[in-house]
Amino acid sequence: MSTAADVVTACLIIIGDEILSGRTRDKNLPYLAEKLNETGVRLAECRVVPDIEAEIVAAVNACRTKFDYVFTTGGIGPTHDDITADSVAAAFGVGIGYHPDAMALLQAHYDKTGMEFNESRKRMARVPNGAELIDNPVSKAPGFQIENVFVLAGVPAIMQAMFESLRHKLAGGKPVRSVAIAVYLGEGIMAPGLGALQQRYPDVAMGSYPFYRDGRFGTSIVSRSSDEDRLAAAADEIRALMRDLGGEPIDDENSPA
Amino acid sequence: MSTAADVVTACLIIIGDEILSGRTRDKNLPYLAEKLNETGVRLAECRVVPDIEAEIVAAVNACRTKFDYVFTTGGIGPTHDDITADSVAAAFGVGIGYHPDAMALLQAHYDKTGMEFNESRKRMARVPNGAELIDNPVSKAPGFQIENVFVLAGVPAIMQAMFESLRHKLAGGKPVRSVAIAVYLGEGIMAPGLGALQQRYPDVAMGSYPFYRDGRFGTSIVSRSSDEDRLAAAADEIRALMRDLGGEPIDDENSPA
Repeated sequence: MSTAADVVTACLIIIGDEILSGRTRDKNLPYLAEKLNETGVRLAECRVVPDIEAEIVAAVNACRTKFDYVFTTGGIGPTHDDITADSVAAAFGVGIGYHPDAMALLQAHYDKTGMEFNESRKRMARVPNGAELIDNPVSKAPGFQIENVFVLAGVPAIMQAMFESLRHKLAGGKPVRSVAIAVYLGEGIMAPGLGALQQRYPDVAMGSYPFYRDGRFGTSIVSRSSDEDRLAAAADEIRALMRDLGGEPIDDENSPA
Repeated sequence: MSTAADVVTACLIIIGDEILSGRTRDKNLPYLAEKLNETGVRLAECRVVPDIEAEIVAAVNACRTKFDYVFTTGGIGPTHDDITADSVAAAFGVGIGYHPDAMALLQAHYDKTGMEFNESRKRMARVPNGAELIDNPVSKAPGFQIENVFVLAGVPAIMQAMFESLRHKLAGGKPVRSVAIAVYLGEGIMAPGLGALQQRYPDVAMGSYPFYRDGRFGTSIVSRSSDEDRLAAAADEIRALMRDLGGEPIDDENSPA
């Protein structure tokens, strides 16, 4: 986590009753995790909170001091349940108003499409005072950044486009590389040797994930490190351990674990 | 949330680096959300935390006082990265030891399958002092309950079986019913009328979710309440609003929103 100087951390706050009800499955966490890692930022926590201002405020304030970056998804549309901008303003203790650039680009968008730029749609131009807009090439209504908090849409295609608009602003550390190796051996057989390896490689995080595939039980060992040499050395030792235990290591980019 | 006397709340803590790296997609949140709601318990928050004891302890202690029930998934296997039991013991400030019933059932399991009941596998019998076991009919290694915290496996099939073993222990409130109605109208058109309806139905939570389907933009309005009469009345008014705006309401059990 934040102990090593070269580790830059982020937290994702998913805002939405529809995720907590189980009705909608979040697709933003895996996308963001992968894209952040490419820029050397590690997703270190995620919270899913309901459409309740006090809950959003509490989560934003807990996370913006703890992590280098915070991303929120959801709740920035035109309807009454879209309360993210107000909640983030409250979290920072700042006012909120219509951003002139956001008003202009939405006005142009609705002029072009012949739709009415009504009061509800104007809500999408409201951002906390001092925030900078994040471009939304998909559907125009922008996200925004205030200090280290990036407020994005919940719809995955729009969230992804917004992330592309902001990623140049992120200052990352060394990306974490991972190697996954699977074997048709039980976790409990691998465990003693793997635990000993982990002790000798404190700079390589080793995770063990059981799976059941083609009628057989197996284990995927996923090793992660920002040091490629150490990672490669650890992976070689894991393969050797598997062979010692009578298994055949499988380099496993598509492990179900 | 916890303000209404008949609302019983729960928090899910997903423990695992593999979720935060984006490598594994969580399937437990939607399952648990739906099953909890059937028993009258509302999933009110979720946190995803890494395999770091201090982070797990902090999340468990923040959530067990705030919510009626806490569920954790992940980190109860035999390997070095399975630190949930120790972390939960630390959160409660209690010791941890081999539970005699867990030892007996694992011993019987490994005797039967002819596998060695080694030290690593014995780790799966370690539970915090004072905890009660939760039956695991799939792979034997039990979960456990300590006060209002239920510690479950991360593998979905095992988590689900454990949930079936414990659900009779949950005292729920009135289940929340939901009605989803879709329409091929933009959110921004629906928004003013919907906001006014929400004001008149404070006991019915109305969520608005845009979608794009068959080349057309639309909106799903999802209403939720534990009062079926009020829910039905609100749904009728939403359908009427959609017709007033020139749309045709579609009762939408499978909305993509």
